[in-house]
Amino acid sequence: MPHTPLVATAQNYLYEHIPITRHLGVIVRAFDGRSIELAAPLEPNINHRATVFGGSLASVAILAGWTILHLKLLEKNVRAHLVIQKTSLEFLAPVTGDFTATCKLADESWESFFKMLVSKSKARLKLTSHIYADGKLACTQEGTFVAVIRTEQQEIL
Amino acid sequence: MPHTPLVATAQNYLYEHIPITRHLGVIVRAFDGRSIELAAPLEPNINHRATVFGGSLASVAILAGWTILHLKLLEKNVRAHLVIQKTSLEFLAPVTGDFTATCKLADESWESFFKMLVSKSKARLKLTSHIYADGKLACTQEGTFVAVIRTEQQEIL
Repeated sequence: MPHTPLVATAQNYLYEHIPITRHLGVIVRAFDGRSIELAAPLEPNINHRATVFGGSLASVAILAGWTILHLKLLEKNVRAHLVIQKTSLEFLAPVTGDFTATCKLADESWESFFKMLVSKSKARLKLTSHIYADGKLACTQEGTFVAVIRTEQQEIL
Repeated sequence: MPHTPLVATAQNYLYEHIPITRHLGVIVRAFDGRSIELAAPLEPNINHRATVFGGSLASVAILAGWTILHLKLLEKNVRAHLVIQKTSLEFLAPVTGDFTATCKLADESWESFFKMLVSKSKARLKLTSHIYADGKLACTQEGTFVAVIRTEQQEIL
């Protein structure tokens, strides 16, 4: 599947299945099979300091990692439940405007994760996302995601 | 200042200054001077698994820590900028319904934080918040908050 239609697929998926993403104003901007870029505006995410609320930065950073794995599994036609298990964030600089969250997937990490998922029906992967605003790194996030292959029984549920 | 009016003060502050809290459906439910309880419903925070989106859990957990410090500083009539510097979360169980985030402030931690803030105009404090749903612990969050005393010049800006 080419990558460009997957951007729209991901955008629709987020707005439909994680409706708070509409209020966060999250846009899936790019996906090239190895990295993803999400974007969000300041205005709906503004806080008491006229900068982006830390919870919104956490949300968009988590979504960057989640969405790239979701699309990679979609490319492989693998139906899996994908959830975040733990995360840590460092807020390096206040975000005073619109921002992006990028996440890159190293080939080796993806391959060993995917091999484990197919052979054991469950796999875990740690991903790093970066929030940039005004050309500067504003936040780093590490997230550990877990995927579990869906069984037919789960499909019925 | 008695604690009960501070619950409404905090609620109004969040909705006015961090508007995404309205979409998250965050309610400041209780504050007794030492601990705070926020609550939020499943529905606006639902994800693809019909559980609460991890970013929403992160947001409400961060808000629990931030709001208790905000109210404690308000009680002391200290005007300070208060921001989160880093956070980590462990998602222990899926949240399948409405949830609460509680944060307790140990007397000694608060006192040494406040003493440092008054003497050095800047202080840092690590707080732990817990998310409960259906009577069970679903998520723990650690957050490091930084407070900086506002100067008159900053007030003008």
